[in-house]
Amino acid sequence: MIATKLIPRTASAQEQPLLVKTILAQSLNYEPQREIVYRDLFRMNYVEFNQRVRRLANLLTSSGVKPGDTVAVFDWDSHRYLECFFAIPCLGAILHTINVRLSPAQILYCMNHAEDKVVVIHEDFLPLLDAIKSQLTTVETFILVSDKVYQNQEVVIPDGFVGEYESLLNTASDQYDFPDFDENTWATTFYTTGTTGNPKGVYFSHRQLFMHTMGLVTYICGYEAVAFHSTHDVYMPITPLFHVHAWGFPLLATMLSARQVYPGRYEPEMLLKLLLKEKVTLSHCVPTILTMLVNSPVARQVDLSRWKVIIGGSALTKGLAKAALELGIQIYAGYGLSETAPILSLTYLNDTERALPIDEQVEFRTRAGRIAPFIDIQLQDDDGQPVPHDGHSLGELTARGFWLTQGYYKETERGEELWRNGWLHTGDVAAITPDNWVIIADRTKDVIKSGGEWVSSLAIENCLSQIEGVAESAVVGFPDEKWGERPHALVVLKPEYAGKVTAETIKTALQGQISSGDINKWYVPDRIVLVGEIPKTSVGKIDKKKIRAEMKALIFS
Amino acid sequence: MIATKLIPRTASAQEQPLLVKTILAQSLNYEPQREIVYRDLFRMNYVEFNQRVRRLANLLTSSGVKPGDTVAVFDWDSHRYLECFFAIPCLGAILHTINVRLSPAQILYCMNHAEDKVVVIHEDFLPLLDAIKSQLTTVETFILVSDKVYQNQEVVIPDGFVGEYESLLNTASDQYDFPDFDENTWATTFYTTGTTGNPKGVYFSHRQLFMHTMGLVTYICGYEAVAFHSTHDVYMPITPLFHVHAWGFPLLATMLSARQVYPGRYEPEMLLKLLLKEKVTLSHCVPTILTMLVNSPVARQVDLSRWKVIIGGSALTKGLAKAALELGIQIYAGYGLSETAPILSLTYLNDTERALPIDEQVEFRTRAGRIAPFIDIQLQDDDGQPVPHDGHSLGELTARGFWLTQGYYKETERGEELWRNGWLHTGDVAAITPDNWVIIADRTKDVIKSGGEWVSSLAIENCLSQIEGVAESAVVGFPDEKWGERPHALVVLKPEYAGKVTAETIKTALQGQISSGDINKWYVPDRIVLVGEIPKTSVGKIDKKKIRAEMKALIFS
Repeated sequence: MIATKLIPRTASAQEQPLLVKTILAQSLNYEPQREIVYRDLFRMNYVEFNQRVRRLANLLTSSGVKPGDTVAVFDWDSHRYLECFFAIPCLGAILHTINVRLSPAQILYCMNHAEDKVVVIHEDFLPLLDAIKSQLTTVETFILVSDKVYQNQEVVIPDGFVGEYESLLNTASDQYDFPDFDENTWATTFYTTGTTGNPKGVYFSHRQLFMHTMGLVTYICGYEAVAFHSTHDVYMPITPLFHVHAWGFPLLATMLSARQVYPGRYEPEMLLKLLLKEKVTLSHCVPTILTMLVNSPVARQVDLSRWKVIIGGSALTKGLAKAALELGIQIYAGYGLSETAPILSLTYLNDTERALPIDEQVEFRTRAGRIAPFIDIQLQDDDGQPVPHDGHSLGELTARGFWLTQGYYKETERGEELWRNGWLHTGDVAAITPDNWVIIADRTKDVIKSGGEWVSSLAIENCLSQIEGVAESAVVGFPDEKWGERPHALVVLKPEYAGKVTAETIKTALQGQISSGDINKWYVPDRIVLVGEIPKTSVGKIDKKKIRAEMKALIFS
Repeated sequence: MIATKLIPRTASAQEQPLLVKTILAQSLNYEPQREIVYRDLFRMNYVEFNQRVRRLANLLTSSGVKPGDTVAVFDWDSHRYLECFFAIPCLGAILHTINVRLSPAQILYCMNHAEDKVVVIHEDFLPLLDAIKSQLTTVETFILVSDKVYQNQEVVIPDGFVGEYESLLNTASDQYDFPDFDENTWATTFYTTGTTGNPKGVYFSHRQLFMHTMGLVTYICGYEAVAFHSTHDVYMPITPLFHVHAWGFPLLATMLSARQVYPGRYEPEMLLKLLLKEKVTLSHCVPTILTMLVNSPVARQVDLSRWKVIIGGSALTKGLAKAALELGIQIYAGYGLSETAPILSLTYLNDTERALPIDEQVEFRTRAGRIAPFIDIQLQDDDGQPVPHDGHSLGELTARGFWLTQGYYKETERGEELWRNGWLHTGDVAAITPDNWVIIADRTKDVIKSGGEWVSSLAIENCLSQIEGVAESAVVGFPDEKWGERPHALVVLKPEYAGKVTAETIKTALQGQISSGDINKWYVPDRIVLVGEIPKTSVGKIDKKKIRAEMKALIFS
């Protein structure tokens, strides 16, 4: 950084830090009467919400939480979780959002690694807790969360718990003066799992959460990337709050005192009921949830035309986008990682694209979005050199910005690997168009390097999926003496095509797609093998590591 | 500030500073084809604008400007000024916006005090420059700005000038890699004049300008305080760019790549022509300009219904607000100081107020607005103790926030006075409603303290103005043995009421307003004096200092 002249400061002048409490304060300023709703069980306005956040801060303080301590939360998407989003960081402590989908062993690892001191836990997760409780090394206290209190049912408090959330909140004071402190104070932490090694802890400061909210408000409200207006919109997350702060939207919605709806555990009937009854207009979710809703017979009988949905987590297919658009649902896509807090890109149709017919918009809406405000993206090759953003050259997507994790907790080497040459390495291979559209091609570990060129296995799989008779496919790179690597494909046929379609006819069909410009000549796999099924991981993703090993066995057998 | 746990940082991790260049970069990301227009003389899109900003950075660098140096600009509102807004701070130098309405002696003082090194100056101001040039102690170079180049007229370059802006820009490279540096780097400076002493230099850092832009985008686009949308809006300032960065709107408009129109020197025909031809939808100005436009015969013949105007600088009267609303113009009000960069408050009608008929909205739209996002306001009494925000108690308006000047340049004592007890003291007396409306009552030096209560001279003057026959009035405080101070009034009658209305009838009429709740009993002046005219300052403001002295002479004579 070059030397410049800094502003002089008068001794008494107050310098305001970027803190989460400032976002919370905004929620009371203009529309405090708007509501936060939890299922069909509970509703409150922002005045009550602010009081409850302070009650919770008092409850946590009296439970032993001090600035710098970590508090773990196990809950479905609820108003209580939103209260934790604010009360814990605002008192100077660290919110650890537990991914309840991890294995008990992984959760145990994360909790001991993060040094959780107090745990707020929904009763649905008590069996999970029982399995690991004796091995927790740092936890001192538990607070029980239960929906039964809203239904006047009796709640049983287990041993070692200070009590039940609602009752404890009722007895706590609603006065708490959240202090000022350094904006680089640690606010949140959570763990991300890879294919190898232990989960890695990422973490974000108050300044980072504040600036992520500023990025969202600039993009979504300023540019109208996703038309989200405080006055008209009602927000309901359908990506869990434990998943990268539900993409930061709860902070944005709270800052704008927008109406918010929390659906608890995701159950299709409850989601659809809330969607209609509370007139939800903005959500975000993974493609699976949208598929489920789009395919629901009820969806065709109701008006979903003011529902805007941002899709993330995995790629939005054209088929799903079209089906949703036909129901009147407005579809957007977002892209980011746990490490990036998460927003790196989000759909934004510019003046020209917005004027296109829906059918032509699908092409844009299924991309991973445009680079978000204040984010710098650089595609890099294997040597860390920049790759042109010309819409077709592939490179690893690396990023800079205000809200990227500054490392992995207690994992200096993995943090250095993430940040090598001063850019955060996403591990995703992409092309970027000159007008900033992001097109994700592959994971770096799956991309194929043939003759010095990066080849997208996803692009080949997309082509294969359009060939008559092909049900599913997986393309992997395989060592080649001449080219370094060459693509090889596994293909599963639709049952009725068995015997009618062969590896050769598929190859011929693929070659036909070269002339149409969908793929390059060197994208056609050297080997296409028809198989009965494609190896998957435990969470249902194609297991390319296993395929590479099996391919090897196949070829050398 | 309390001690907390800060986020750990990986050595290679990049920490992004809040810099003005990031706002500039945004202008290219999504809608680079949108235009910036200068009168009927020049237009360019954002791609060209970004190139020109870099050309200017090269021109300034080759003219000797280095990081930390100060560059003064004398210009009407132009695209060139906007280029200076970015090029100068982005290269690490300081932009000094010259208030061309100050006296030559004041401008000379400011330029020597700020240590200006290079001066960019429009030819209209050359006579002004000639008067002071020989006494400038730090200036090394001048760059001439002329509109003649857009009309193919010959431009004469005076001695000591490096040349003319456009020609120099044409020969400069459009490549310039704006460096990273500390976000507390000094970006802009300008001078504010009071009733006593030399002009005071206020200054703002990159971080402060960035956060002011975030405050605006949050309020204006997020809350839709003033419905300003990148897609639909066209911005034209009618408050000069040298006046507190034209309230920060040029930075917001550039960040959103909104269409911008710069009117040059303010001439009614040109303003109206641009307003219509360029389809301007958002402006800000002082009441005088709006009065002039509203009273123009042309205004009634054209459609101004999509024009939104934010009024600041002085109070918006109900009469003017109604006249504008009747023409379909949407009226908003803003409040702030040079010291506050400037936004402290801006009109925002909440869900309830927005539903009111226009007539009832006037009451809200003539207030000084609601407290802006991220701004803390505290009303304080003489002892610096908080005064309740109940809508009627008066106190000095003090502020905290991200974008308040941290002092006066080379004036430590005045800076400490500004920031005494850690709050920026505006010198304005106000009431704040529980729902955050700001109602300005007086300047602290004009407020009357009677029996321990603050009395608003403006409120009494407003009441007087509604009494039949009263043309003008001025109320000042005068020492009183029993009450400390008591209000005394000077009143000018409308000519036709001379002899018909007396001080006594006015007093009786005022007392009648007590029952309606407009004023309190102790607001009725002890003495009402009918006069031929009210003493004014050189800029036409009521001279209360002089009145107090004259009152004294009157009473003791």
